[in-house]
Amino acid sequence: MITSPLFLKFIRSAPDVKEEEVTMILDHFTILQVKAKDHTVREGEICKHIGFVNKGCFSYYTLSESGRKSIIHFAFEDWWTGDLQSFLKRQPATTYWQALEEAELITINRSDFEHLCKISQAFKYLFDLKTQTAYIKILNKSAKDKSETAEEKYLRMLEEYPQIIQRVPHYDVASYLGIAPESLSRIRNKISK
Amino acid sequence: MITSPLFLKFIRSAPDVKEEEVTMILDHFTILQVKAKDHTVREGEICKHIGFVNKGCFSYYTLSESGRKSIIHFAFEDWWTGDLQSFLKRQPATTYWQALEEAELITINRSDFEHLCKISQAFKYLFDLKTQTAYIKILNKSAKDKSETAEEKYLRMLEEYPQIIQRVPHYDVASYLGIAPESLSRIRNKISK
Repeated sequence: MITSPLFLKFIRSAPDVKEEEVTMILDHFTILQVKAKDHTVREGEICKHIGFVNKGCFSYYTLSESGRKSIIHFAFEDWWTGDLQSFLKRQPATTYWQALEEAELITINRSDFEHLCKISQAFKYLFDLKTQTAYIKILNKSAKDKSETAEEKYLRMLEEYPQIIQRVPHYDVASYLGIAPESLSRIRNKISK
Repeated sequence: MITSPLFLKFIRSAPDVKEEEVTMILDHFTILQVKAKDHTVREGEICKHIGFVNKGCFSYYTLSESGRKSIIHFAFEDWWTGDLQSFLKRQPATTYWQALEEAELITINRSDFEHLCKISQAFKYLFDLKTQTAYIKILNKSAKDKSETAEEKYLRMLEEYPQIIQRVPHYDVASYLGIAPESLSRIRNKISK
């Protein structure tokens, strides 16, 4: 049985959810320990689980044909991991999910997910709301990414995710901002002055 | 009563939806004619409707403090328009929606939307699925935008939305690609050779 207070808080945030339904939802999930640097999804594989980050931090990225890494975003505690398209449509993933630290995921597989969406209105509500919130977030980010300079992007990132600097390697932060590591060093030096 | 075949097809795509429910859903919508260049949403205003594009084409953009326009995406027939965050949370919008051609929207207001989500499982299903699909689409786009050159972005755009070139002004295509109009002309010339 899952006892994570963070995950319980998330499930109990569904409106009017009864404790029996909470227990039933929890019964569909499993704890997965992930070592630092391990991948939970790789391009070309079918993504078999989505997971709630109970502990740790992940990077979600793509590799171009030339091997260039582009980080779409990071996922800290209370976020979800997994290649959604691959998971929902049972298609090969186009992305990678990698643990940047030793991590703990609370995961659900595809058939349990489908079953749970059918039998639990509360879970379906939470999943749809999370998708909606994530969609609005990435729309806002996408708009800002286009209009801001690298320095503005860096300052916005610090405001939104102050933990990134402590937990994410310099090289990955640069990839997330879409700039060279040297440019990130210059921005950091300029700001610290 | 709405008779648009495109919209009817969309509503009837909900699994096992009965004709009485289709009629009930249609009764919650209104046709809105929009003149070319008119805005249906502006930054700072509350977005009171979301709309299905029955005819025409819209640009969805933000303006930076210095007045720089960043186009997030375009919406053609069968897409939805509206600042989702503003609409759902009744907050001031942070984006603009502008008709690039004379257009026709099939719209629903906030209270009718809330009511319809409660009484129609089919409509709720369609709205959640549309959000999920749009989320997956923008995640993929976001990853590619980071790793591709302007020319690669242009070629991908032509593949995904061949109608953009015929229907969207050169200046707006450049803003969508995040490049100067002169750079877009250079890419076009290079490709046509």
